[in-house]
Amino acid sequence: MDEIYQFLENNQQTILSQLIEFLRLPSVAAKGDNEIMEKTAAWVTDLLEKSGLKAQIHETEGIPIVTGHLDVGAQKTLLYYDHFDVQPAEPLELWESPPFEPTIRNQRLFARGAADNKGDTLSRIWAVKAFVETGTDLPVNIKFLIEGEEEAGSPNLPDFVKQNQDFLRADGGIWEFGGAESDGVQQAWLGLKGLLYVQLETRKVGMDAHSAYASFLPSATWRMIWALNSLKDENEKVLIEGFYDDVQPLSDPELEVIQNTEFFPDFLKEYYHIDTFVKNMDCQQLKNNFYNEPTCNICGIGSGWQGPGGKTVLPAEAMAKVDFRLVKDQEIEDILRKLRNHLDSKGFSDIKIAWYEGYRAAKTPVNHPFVDVVRKATLAIHGHEPRIHITNPGSGPLYLFEDIVPMVSIGCDDFDSRAHSPNESVPLSLFFLDIKRQTKIIDEMGRTN
Amino acid sequence: MDEIYQFLENNQQTILSQLIEFLRLPSVAAKGDNEIMEKTAAWVTDLLEKSGLKAQIHETEGIPIVTGHLDVGAQKTLLYYDHFDVQPAEPLELWESPPFEPTIRNQRLFARGAADNKGDTLSRIWAVKAFVETGTDLPVNIKFLIEGEEEAGSPNLPDFVKQNQDFLRADGGIWEFGGAESDGVQQAWLGLKGLLYVQLETRKVGMDAHSAYASFLPSATWRMIWALNSLKDENEKVLIEGFYDDVQPLSDPELEVIQNTEFFPDFLKEYYHIDTFVKNMDCQQLKNNFYNEPTCNICGIGSGWQGPGGKTVLPAEAMAKVDFRLVKDQEIEDILRKLRNHLDSKGFSDIKIAWYEGYRAAKTPVNHPFVDVVRKATLAIHGHEPRIHITNPGSGPLYLFEDIVPMVSIGCDDFDSRAHSPNESVPLSLFFLDIKRQTKIIDEMGRTN
Repeated sequence: MDEIYQFLENNQQTILSQLIEFLRLPSVAAKGDNEIMEKTAAWVTDLLEKSGLKAQIHETEGIPIVTGHLDVGAQKTLLYYDHFDVQPAEPLELWESPPFEPTIRNQRLFARGAADNKGDTLSRIWAVKAFVETGTDLPVNIKFLIEGEEEAGSPNLPDFVKQNQDFLRADGGIWEFGGAESDGVQQAWLGLKGLLYVQLETRKVGMDAHSAYASFLPSATWRMIWALNSLKDENEKVLIEGFYDDVQPLSDPELEVIQNTEFFPDFLKEYYHIDTFVKNMDCQQLKNNFYNEPTCNICGIGSGWQGPGGKTVLPAEAMAKVDFRLVKDQEIEDILRKLRNHLDSKGFSDIKIAWYEGYRAAKTPVNHPFVDVVRKATLAIHGHEPRIHITNPGSGPLYLFEDIVPMVSIGCDDFDSRAHSPNESVPLSLFFLDIKRQTKIIDEMGRTN
Repeated sequence: MDEIYQFLENNQQTILSQLIEFLRLPSVAAKGDNEIMEKTAAWVTDLLEKSGLKAQIHETEGIPIVTGHLDVGAQKTLLYYDHFDVQPAEPLELWESPPFEPTIRNQRLFARGAADNKGDTLSRIWAVKAFVETGTDLPVNIKFLIEGEEEAGSPNLPDFVKQNQDFLRADGGIWEFGGAESDGVQQAWLGLKGLLYVQLETRKVGMDAHSAYASFLPSATWRMIWALNSLKDENEKVLIEGFYDDVQPLSDPELEVIQNTEFFPDFLKEYYHIDTFVKNMDCQQLKNNFYNEPTCNICGIGSGWQGPGGKTVLPAEAMAKVDFRLVKDQEIEDILRKLRNHLDSKGFSDIKIAWYEGYRAAKTPVNHPFVDVVRKATLAIHGHEPRIHITNPGSGPLYLFEDIVPMVSIGCDDFDSRAHSPNESVPLSLFFLDIKRQTKIIDEMGRTN
């Protein structure tokens, strides 16, 4: 492996320049700019080809999916899942440097997508390239699946996975994200919560009206407030009938892992500038919530006048974006139906579910041999075993792969990477170290039976 | 009066051009653009001077106040109250022609401020100019008070009125707005509801966070939803303790007027595209609510991601703008204190009242002789008696004048003028007719003892 490590060392400047080029592409899936998304897909395809993989662009109903593969006739196959799209960068005014003008400060590279997930995408391709360019035999076959709609709910991934089960089948898979926790320890995530994201809308009068008429005109804004209020009480309990029906208790092996997983409540409080967690939870409750509590969060709400000063208006319409994080066995369509029933039964038939998207939760068993591969590679490169989390509270289309490849999520970010927030960044040292770890995972996977 | 009417007839094109010029000035007080506000104040001053009045710009802590007067040594004095500022024009995309590019369609002039209140301001000045230019003796002294912060809560008017009581004292006053109802009948408003406008804000975490952390991070958005929900129930009852304490029943003369005031519930439903009024009110309840029910309306709310697609974020902060329309004897400071107490007692001390503004309600007695002057002038010009409303559900700083001049509010708009909404307009025929009515009011006022 020394030759490979030396190759990566020698190419740091090239890799960094390439990451900066990748991050300059404002590939926000939610913005619906097909031109930039296709340009980014082409950029990724080109990189795969230049790295010795066979790449292909697959048209979908939305943004194309890119695959790459390098079949060396090995017994085992490693699959990488990544995405070349990024979250919207707003609110822009909170960025210290523009989100799509990558900037290095304090040994960190700041840009939208640096941590989620362009840094990882690039690092994994370079890991394979290192084998290829140094003429080192790859001990496993490599496959990449790189989509462009992950931050928009992966609407076209289910069909693609269904139609390409054979291509995607693998003995182990590395999921898109991960990195160091606040104490510097690497984390490995074995699952993802599910997600149901809905946009609620209502319109009560034909036009924005003078607020003097509030004495007789119905208000879309009030309807939305009351409807949202009916969804969750001040003690964080979701009030939708049957919402918790399918929530399963954690298994014994999971509970054992959790018992040993270190948590840092004081750090979290300091980092997020909060005095207490919701429900004033202690550390044990925090763990339980983190791993196995479904949530109901408002991602956004908007109605009426939000500018400066006091416009006296009764808004014609109101909109809210709500996301539910779901745990294993809660099904999207079932929760959606329960939400609709709830709204109807509470008298909110006027609140429309304008659109929705989501995935169900999925987990890789804690005792799967591929988890050990990641553990050993991390120990070899980072000098310590990764902290195993039975699931991550975030979401993604992991469930699609549940029956065809055991996935573990690791990556190059750290506690301060601010994925989905302004000033997203990746620490350069961990970015380069992660490329090395990916080569070690390939090596380690080849050694196991 | 014939010479005066002829003069107005001859000058219609000049008057219209001048109104268009006035409407081109985007004098939105809430936007805080001092340059445009001062330019508009100067424009009004210039017009007063050119119309034969003595005009003056009075500096305030905010936007200057313009006064004009023409003292002819008459026994009686008529005061006009108007404002040269306008509401914000947003949402801009709903305007059929740009809000500050006045456009004539179907004999209506469309622009922000056409109805509220630049059309009226101009019509009144031209009424006086008609006397001056035709050499007709004015039978009453004239005073104008034209401020530039009415749509922003008139923060500097109280001091000005207090310091200029003698200047402002008059035997009758014409308030800023009014016009024809849906059946074409002119309306005269004898009062205004009070207004308390508050901006609520809260911030719960240091930065926007990934919504995956909703299992432990407090949400500003949810706090705002729950706090707002605590203010009013689904049956429109305001839940703030003591909110209704000072609401007085209407007097017998008022009830008598209301009894005879025609209302058009079916028209209102059609116009606003609604099936029912709040609380499913019938016509009698509608009248009661319209004239004597205080309200709690949300003018705007904003938090998190409101753009397209599904950004999964837990917003750091939330903001809501709430206006309370108050009836006579409800005091601003008292309601504000009750609101704060309510929020604190319900556990919402984290919801800040970031700023507030407002006025209390005021009414001119229904049997005041000046009401008769307006009645007679309207009959003479419009051919019918005006419909008397004991109060308008809108608000303004009328209370400041309550003890120094009996005010009646009439004007040049109609039911489709959309004040405060996109596509605000004034019907040209009523605009010109109102100039004539203002000259007749001056004439009529000179005839009464």
